[in-house]
Amino acid sequence: MERVVVFVTDFGLADSYAAALVAAVWRVDRDIRCVAGTHGVPPGDALAGAYHVKALAQAFGSGAVVCAVVDPAVGTARRALAAIAVGVGFVGPDTGLLSYLWGEADGPARQAVALPVPSEASATFHGRDLFAPVAARLAGGAPLGALGERLDAPVLLPEAFAIEGEGGLVGRIAAVDHFGNAITTVRAADLAGRALAGADWEGGAAPRVVRTYAEIDDGLAVLLGSSGHVEIAARGGGVKGGAGALSPGTTVRVLAMR
Amino acid sequence: MERVVVFVTDFGLADSYAAALVAAVWRVDRDIRCVAGTHGVPPGDALAGAYHVKALAQAFGSGAVVCAVVDPAVGTARRALAAIAVGVGFVGPDTGLLSYLWGEADGPARQAVALPVPSEASATFHGRDLFAPVAARLAGGAPLGALGERLDAPVLLPEAFAIEGEGGLVGRIAAVDHFGNAITTVRAADLAGRALAGADWEGGAAPRVVRTYAEIDDGLAVLLGSSGHVEIAARGGGVKGGAGALSPGTTVRVLAMR
Amino acid sequence: MERVVVFVTDFGLADSYAAALVAAVWRVDRDIRCVAGTHGVPPGDALAGAYHVKALAQAFGSGAVVCAVVDPAVGTARRALAAIAVGVGFVGPDTGLLSYLWGEADGPARQAVALPVPSEASATFHGRDLFAPVAARLAGGAPLGALGERLDAPVLLPEAFAIEGEGGLVGRIAAVDHFGNAITTVRAADLAGRALAGADWEGGAAPRVVRTYAEIDDGLAVLLGSSGHVEIAARGGGVKGGAGALSPGTTVRVLAMR
Repeated sequence: MERVVVFVTDFGLADSYAAALVAAVWRVDRDIRCVAGTHGVPPGDALAGAYHVKALAQAFGSGAVVCAVVDPAVGTARRALAAIAVGVGFVGPDTGLLSYLWGEADGPARQAVALPVPSEASATFHGRDLFAPVAARLAGGAPLGALGERLDAPVLLPEAFAIEGEGGLVGRIAAVDHFGNAITTVRAADLAGRALAGADWEGGAAPRVVRTYAEIDDGLAVLLGSSGHVEIAARGGGVKGGAGALSPGTTVRVLAMR
Repeated sequence: MERVVVFVTDFGLADSYAAALVAAVWRVDRDIRCVAGTHGVPPGDALAGAYHVKALAQAFGSGAVVCAVVDPAVGTARRALAAIAVGVGFVGPDTGLLSYLWGEADGPARQAVALPVPSEASATFHGRDLFAPVAARLAGGAPLGALGERLDAPVLLPEAFAIEGEGGLVGRIAAVDHFGNAITTVRAADLAGRALAGADWEGGAAPRVVRTYAEIDDGLAVLLGSSGHVEIAARGGGVKGGAGALSPGTTVRVLAMR
Repeated sequence: MERVVVFVTDFGLADSYAAALVAAVWRVDRDIRCVAGTHGVPPGDALAGAYHVKALAQAFGSGAVVCAVVDPAVGTARRALAAIAVGVGFVGPDTGLLSYLWGEADGPARQAVALPVPSEASATFHGRDLFAPVAARLAGGAPLGALGERLDAPVLLPEAFAIEGEGGLVGRIAAVDHFGNAITTVRAADLAGRALAGADWEGGAAPRVVRTYAEIDDGLAVLLGSSGHVEIAARGGGVKGGAGALSPGTTVRVLAMR
């Protein structure tokens, strides 16, 4: 989708930081539409951020730019990036936020540049002073090469990618959503044609496989969620504080059957 | 208001589900404006959803489309609806969300259709895969009859409508707002010319009637709120956790005097 | 930035009040863009509101209109205002929300008018019935003088302005942000060329001065934040519930050294 910047941050909505990003985009180009993808990434959680970057890239599609700011090391030497992967733009700190978007693109379909930090940028708010203005330029049609110097690959979070284990795939909880569904790092593609058969983790298990949330009577179940990741869900209230005590980062095994 | 889609959901704002609705609308028609009516309906609470659908229909007026998704039974046999009532469009699951908008319209001013579920829709996210795209079409001018097959009436929640009782009207708390004001299902029209005289409920009472929040010194008071529903309010902090312990669903009696 | 209305309220996002403001603006002028500056001001906290009004005025710049509604006394005799300060418009109740925007403007660069309350306005929602429509007119180019009668000065909150004390400036915590950084009322200009040297308060101290959040290893530190106010920050989790127990309104001394 052309001329759209979608924000993914850990800024929350209680302050005026999110709106400052909109202002920064419009200072560059008033014709860019700004969408609050989510400002609810848990503070500093790059894995959850990477998940939302990918989900929103899927949603808005080719031409859109995702401006993602989960940036606890702002003002230090961490790199600043702009990238394009399968037609979707990305601008943000090099903190692993590109893991899925980059990792799921074919080599030729992805490229990235390192952004110079403007001398007038504040030390604490590169979202406003660097990333949003660059996102506006990228969404407005600036070629990636004009934004910075080519780099080979961004930081990819190893924990974003499930690995083959005994009986299935070993991954993590990438995010627990508003309904209490625990979204894993295990993707449909990781199943490689095998059938989803349940999940277990230290101190808990989801033995049932369902297609809809309404099928879960009690206990925990697994399903393939709307973003293509395996979820662990409970009826009414979800997994938060439940027996399984799933939370972001928990290691889980997703069972897969031929 | 033409070419506007207003969302009412229980999705919260911590995830990217709300933004996925915007993307789905714009994939159909980039000229539709999307407004976050509220994404803060308590999970699965169709009564609160119905209240917000009506409040936002009043706010945006004729021509606008409210796309409401409070849908715990997504993917099951519950019907999917599009409707028009007094000029305002509605698209969402048939879970009672139309109660006020439909219930307050005259017969000829309202009509509804049942939506077919596209075969490519996910089982867990009809907001994105069915309701938002249909809302975009309706807001873009598609006639209701082109969207599905005519049906007689949507699900109306009986608890949305107060009933005459001794000394007044017996209703419920439809929602407790951010300020702690408890909004009842009792509407100005239900008073039928009688004067508001207070409220009581199991374990509590609001004996005073006020016009503004600032008039409440201590204790609880009733007033006619800005959406035309009777509210029970407390100065500073509201009714949450207070003596009255009002929460969504609590049965209350609104006293009315000739 | 022309034809933009930026909202600052304590409405929260769980209800449909914030969206009702957008509807009210568009009923006057569909070509005005609406931005949720923040709806997360703590209920009734005019000092935090004044801080966000100023931060957003800086962000959106000349031509933009900030519509700020922190209005516990709605419906009573408190004045309603429209103003312009250094080119930025303001519309809202006269509850101190203009403190910084007005206080930081030169005399000739600021003017204000008292708004008449329309007879059809509700007693409890002037945001919808008065302030948003006037903000739309102001953003649409209406001259300030057409909106109401000239007044000399709005309410300014004395606590918004730090005062010189022994060894530094005595101010308050204006807001604690989502990351747990405590933003003080002490501004870069208040330092008047002196160097920032730390901060202390009853029961706590931030002895270190840093430039970025990442430099804070443990304990508390002070830095000059992105809005030009001195902040007290802690690594990961911030000052909330910490040893220092800083919260909105706490009196702090910011140490300044020649």
